[in-house]
Amino acid sequence: MEKIEQANKIAVGRMLDSDPVLVDVRPAGEIISGLADGVILHAGPPIGWDRMCGPMRGAITGAIVLEGWAGDLAAAGKLAQSGDISFQPNHHFDAVGPMTGLITPSMPVMVVENRKFGNRAFCTLNEGLGKVMRFGGNDGEVLNRLRWLASDLAPALSRALADREGLPLKAIIARGLSMGDEMHQRNIACTGLVLRELAPSLARTSTDPETLAGLLSFIGGNDQFFLNIAMAMGKAIMDPVRGVDGSCVVTAMSRNGTDFGIRVSGTGDQWFTAPVEMPNGLYFPGFSERDANPDMGDSTIVETMGLGGFAMAAAPAVAGFVGAGSAGDALNYTRSMLEITVGRNPEWTIPALDFTGVPTGIDIRKVLETGLAPVINTGIAHREPGVGQVGAGIVRAPMACFEQALEAFAAGMGVGGVS
Amino acid sequence: MEKIEQANKIAVGRMLDSDPVLVDVRPAGEIISGLADGVILHAGPPIGWDRMCGPMRGAITGAIVLEGWAGDLAAAGKLAQSGDISFQPNHHFDAVGPMTGLITPSMPVMVVENRKFGNRAFCTLNEGLGKVMRFGGNDGEVLNRLRWLASDLAPALSRALADREGLPLKAIIARGLSMGDEMHQRNIACTGLVLRELAPSLARTSTDPETLAGLLSFIGGNDQFFLNIAMAMGKAIMDPVRGVDGSCVVTAMSRNGTDFGIRVSGTGDQWFTAPVEMPNGLYFPGFSERDANPDMGDSTIVETMGLGGFAMAAAPAVAGFVGAGSAGDALNYTRSMLEITVGRNPEWTIPALDFTGVPTGIDIRKVLETGLAPVINTGIAHREPGVGQVGAGIVRAPMACFEQALEAFAAGMGVGGVS
Repeated sequence: MEKIEQANKIAVGRMLDSDPVLVDVRPAGEIISGLADGVILHAGPPIGWDRMCGPMRGAITGAIVLEGWAGDLAAAGKLAQSGDISFQPNHHFDAVGPMTGLITPSMPVMVVENRKFGNRAFCTLNEGLGKVMRFGGNDGEVLNRLRWLASDLAPALSRALADREGLPLKAIIARGLSMGDEMHQRNIACTGLVLRELAPSLARTSTDPETLAGLLSFIGGNDQFFLNIAMAMGKAIMDPVRGVDGSCVVTAMSRNGTDFGIRVSGTGDQWFTAPVEMPNGLYFPGFSERDANPDMGDSTIVETMGLGGFAMAAAPAVAGFVGAGSAGDALNYTRSMLEITVGRNPEWTIPALDFTGVPTGIDIRKVLETGLAPVINTGIAHREPGVGQVGAGIVRAPMACFEQALEAFAAGMGVGGVS
Repeated sequence: MEKIEQANKIAVGRMLDSDPVLVDVRPAGEIISGLADGVILHAGPPIGWDRMCGPMRGAITGAIVLEGWAGDLAAAGKLAQSGDISFQPNHHFDAVGPMTGLITPSMPVMVVENRKFGNRAFCTLNEGLGKVMRFGGNDGEVLNRLRWLASDLAPALSRALADREGLPLKAIIARGLSMGDEMHQRNIACTGLVLRELAPSLARTSTDPETLAGLLSFIGGNDQFFLNIAMAMGKAIMDPVRGVDGSCVVTAMSRNGTDFGIRVSGTGDQWFTAPVEMPNGLYFPGFSERDANPDMGDSTIVETMGLGGFAMAAAPAVAGFVGAGSAGDALNYTRSMLEITVGRNPEWTIPALDFTGVPTGIDIRKVLETGLAPVINTGIAHREPGVGQVGAGIVRAPMACFEQALEAFAAGMGVGGVS
């Protein structure tokens, strides 16, 4: 097993060596190769229209109207099931998206460059709370906000990032971990840190005071603005970890609302899928688990790199928000994830654990040995199209994904059992 | 003793009922009644030039040059000791200042209004790190920055605060406590929260993009910007607590670098003083305790209202910065301060202590009974004029202050011993 240990060390070394920098915000159709008219990228492993969940379908009809491929939601629904739209996973296009995770050509995406390895990753801009497409929203309010992101916010961010030659992200995460963020369900600190970094450049490159005030209000008023940056960063960090011969470190965890899929370094781009589970969480007033859609989104890239549920100890306030218990429970989530990871990240540490590094590099063997599935902090969407978020909670990656992955990994290594 | 318990309840009730709002930034000479030419306000209890420490003298000569009352530092020194300058404590003028804490007429002060009780309190703008007047700096660089605060930053903040009709502060503290700030030696989160609240109004009322970018950079680049806001807030909260008949709650703790003084509600405006102690801390490279000036500044108003050292559990990263130990030690500082306070603040809670409220209302009897002196997180100044900050640490309020206060309090209550 010496070879596996070595390979996993290389895999985690690439995670730690990464240097992710937010460099630009561009229209997706311009910067994502292969994203043409008639193509819609979605969260999670591959899936066809027939097996998609309600909010995913709702978001898709909205996106078709946004792109002008159909005149209204009804016509969009027909087009979606006609077979004339190509549905593809974000992960196959260097991209990630939260919840439904849709990316269509006119949507702006943030570009994170991993300066150590030269690769780039993409994620849409966070739409804010309320009725939004990532939770299945698709009405006029949702589409108009998406149009404003493209017409106003994206060009302003692009100019600001050019003015300061990009925004290095690793140090922001390090600070955010000492300020109560775990970068999945809590991004208040990192959103503020980004705003304070970008505000001078936004001012310097602004076109008029009122528009600038609107941009600053939108970013500052959206506690989850940083989530999408963290996701693009996660993808930029994890992509160079793919294909390390002999490594059983997880390179992606992702859900489309129907299936949960994982990818493992040594088995390349193969998906190992199982039915998604229901989050265990707290619901907004008026909603209950009966309204909830199962787990969804590419945002689990955050846990894949050691944040989110893995960094719960940094964010005792999140533990309450997702119904995970007390401050002591928050510490225990992180401690238990240290049991299934190859190492710790010495640059991303948690003060409440006396500066222990976050658990880094999920080893599928350890997941199966300990029976501890990766813990994920997640938002909960309504199961019907067009409604939106109804709560937040904790969910586990399904064990079946890891069982399949280990089997394929072992076969590839030419051994019967590798644990 | 029923009367004392009742009176202390009233005192703490006033603290909890307070509604501090940052409303404006004005030149001190315009808004502080009695601050005329030839008057210099300083930190701590009353003190004459002859007993002042090095950094206080250094700052005073700089302030005299800033005001144009003398042409250079040498002439300013002569004027200072001539008896023609009136030195007065900030606390006698509804004001507070960090470290040397000087306020002279041309300096802008932030105005915090306590909307529940109608009183107002003042504090200067934070100068940033490096060579600054609060640590005894007095050269051209120091004075030029003070001039820029008055000419550029203060009017911009004044316009922005008018645009949004003030900035309520209690909710910002509540959030900051869940983001690793204790509001004395760590204000990163609150500074960011203020920036994100004010940025849209700063943009809307800006005069030109380059100046605006400079202001946003200055605030965003100064992790302690919020400290001075917290101090003005503390003074605005504690002043209505003065003079509650029969209350032995501390209303002010303050140091001038020579003496430490406290005031107690039931004994009115009388100061109880004792020699300041030396902080126990960590020093910047090249400095040691031999360079340190004893404890100084009005910033202990932060601890007086239950933050700073009292809220150390919220800020495990500070514990390291001030040399106070591990995350577990940080929790214990807050727990021990709960032993000397009347109550807890239900609106200002600490996630790491499962949302325990910060210790509120120092009871001088409990300090003496337990032998636990209030713990203070503090910056450390060089003992010579003109040098600046050399470290940060922990210091205790001297027990002698509390002994004198209890004696006077007991005499006023007509009892021999009130504990």
